[in-house]
Amino acid sequence: MTRIAVDAMGGDFAPEEIVKGAVWAAHDYKVPIELVGQIDKIQPILDEISKKGIRSNRGGFFVKNIKVDLSKLDIKLTQADEIIEMGEAPGTALRKKRNSSIVLSVDAVAKGSSDAVVAAGSTGAAMAASLFGLGRIKGIERPAIATTLPTLKDPVILIDAGANSESSAEMLLQFALMGSTFVEKVYNRPAPRVGILNIGEEEEKGNQLVKDAYKLLKENTLGLNFVGNIEGKELLYGDVDVVVCDGFVGNVALKAVEGCSMMLFKLIKKQFKSDILSMMVGLLAKPFLKRIYKKINYEEFGGALLLGVKGITVISHGRSSSYAIKNAVRVAKEAVEKSVNTKIAELIG
Amino acid sequence: MTRIAVDAMGGDFAPEEIVKGAVWAAHDYKVPIELVGQIDKIQPILDEISKKGIRSNRGGFFVKNIKVDLSKLDIKLTQADEIIEMGEAPGTALRKKRNSSIVLSVDAVAKGSSDAVVAAGSTGAAMAASLFGLGRIKGIERPAIATTLPTLKDPVILIDAGANSESSAEMLLQFALMGSTFVEKVYNRPAPRVGILNIGEEEEKGNQLVKDAYKLLKENTLGLNFVGNIEGKELLYGDVDVVVCDGFVGNVALKAVEGCSMMLFKLIKKQFKSDILSMMVGLLAKPFLKRIYKKINYEEFGGALLLGVKGITVISHGRSSSYAIKNAVRVAKEAVEKSVNTKIAELIG
Repeated sequence: MTRIAVDAMGGDFAPEEIVKGAVWAAHDYKVPIELVGQIDKIQPILDEISKKGIRSNRGGFFVKNIKVDLSKLDIKLTQADEIIEMGEAPGTALRKKRNSSIVLSVDAVAKGSSDAVVAAGSTGAAMAASLFGLGRIKGIERPAIATTLPTLKDPVILIDAGANSESSAEMLLQFALMGSTFVEKVYNRPAPRVGILNIGEEEEKGNQLVKDAYKLLKENTLGLNFVGNIEGKELLYGDVDVVVCDGFVGNVALKAVEGCSMMLFKLIKKQFKSDILSMMVGLLAKPFLKRIYKKINYEEFGGALLLGVKGITVISHGRSSSYAIKNAVRVAKEAVEKSVNTKIAELIG
Repeated sequence: MTRIAVDAMGGDFAPEEIVKGAVWAAHDYKVPIELVGQIDKIQPILDEISKKGIRSNRGGFFVKNIKVDLSKLDIKLTQADEIIEMGEAPGTALRKKRNSSIVLSVDAVAKGSSDAVVAAGSTGAAMAASLFGLGRIKGIERPAIATTLPTLKDPVILIDAGANSESSAEMLLQFALMGSTFVEKVYNRPAPRVGILNIGEEEEKGNQLVKDAYKLLKENTLGLNFVGNIEGKELLYGDVDVVVCDGFVGNVALKAVEGCSMMLFKLIKKQFKSDILSMMVGLLAKPFLKRIYKKINYEEFGGALLLGVKGITVISHGRSSSYAIKNAVRVAKEAVEKSVNTKIAELIG
């Protein structure tokens, strides 16, 4: 049965929110968990969950209170003495901290005690640990980060969302292939529509990279359903399933969208606090806004996938609440069970 | 006195909204206008304005009804037989249509009958016409588009928002210089804070282009107030005054933000239409949401500036309403009167 290794020490609210999220996932999805980290810090959280259930005041709207019987869940603890902090240079940190929670989480997959990793700590460290610890899928030039974004229709996959800040057209073709496979397998969408993120719709638009990638994608014989270029504003329309781009552009776009939603919700909150009448209208409007917030909240999607390594690594947001981690475990489980990597290897091979 | 040439034929709602916006600006800001286009199409709109005032049902929330006395306004008409359509390749179109409204609008500035251009038609055509018709400021490698974005604090300038899809570090330094001058002069902000759009805050983050640009900006002796890298999500925080980037990245980020706001407002509208109770709450909440919409609406800023050419060209959104055009004329007037170009030339020279 699929077991998910969770780096209990990574993330702004680690280990508390991470442990709670992992237990929550074990309870909701009946998935075995391997919690990797400092056991003396993890155990008290488990004890508290045993007594009081899962309570969380993180993640905005997702405060829950869930009773769990830990004795009925399959949760394994693995000791990791060290923690790689957010500011550390990934390469150096990995060499120095061989007993860090992220390295041992990846090791768990490499050794076969778990099948996938969920990590909310340093993205760079999670990427590097996965690449060194698991290796690339044969034929894949560079792994890429696939992020799920909410749209007006179904969620879209943006790949690469930041693993590579310099890409070639061949890499973009491989990103398309990996993203398409993920959407097809995990989201059960046949023939996912693939678009290139560009500054215009016409074939001749954009920089050399996207022009070359356009040709490769148009002429692909891998069965990719390439539908052409899309512009930044179409990213959230939901008219394509996979948006392909260089990691620099993808990261900027992803974070611009994140910042924009945050700004709008802040402006709305502020507007509804300007006087007593506004506050009353605000109270009435709150449940509606909550529903929208829930629809666009990244916590629903759990995290981004590092695709292209021999294993599944879900990279969660640094500010992940237990709710986000629960969803991240679900995504990891599905990616393993639907054999995303096997399919990628078949197509590339 | 500063006169603004307005391409009456460019834009989705041309000539009607363009003519109305130009007259509105003439009325509100006492600025002389040169309307360039097919006079037989422009005159009936002017006649209607004379009789009924300016009425507009475009631009969402900005429906106005303004009485104007045309005999008291300084509005000059210049005939242009041709129109460059949105789909046309700018280079070819410019060569073929020497009598198009955009070419003759730029000519008006080149010949000195006007001091700046406002154009809501094809961005490519407006850029190319300005570059060929006005020439580059001496020392400027490539002109760039400076767009104003709303933030949680004061508006920020994003440069380049799409003029160049391949840039060098030297170009980014010049973009910084032009954007900084614009903010200082037109927005009256001393020592504007300049940031590079990047995928992390540390100096060593990003692709080669931004790493090289970081060095140039850090070591600049032009008096630029460089504050380091900013991430996509910080674009709308308002902690910097000028955000510098390559035009490909800038265009994607700009449009991602545009698409994100649009998606959120669509989701909010939909949520407030789900049943009779929601509709009632929606009616109460509407004035609050309108205020936010107004705050973030690009129409408030009128348009983007093409900086680096010997003249001022304001490139307005294709969907510009009369309200947007009115504001575009204001921006053009201010850029001329505050001598943005003279200052850029001084700094570069």
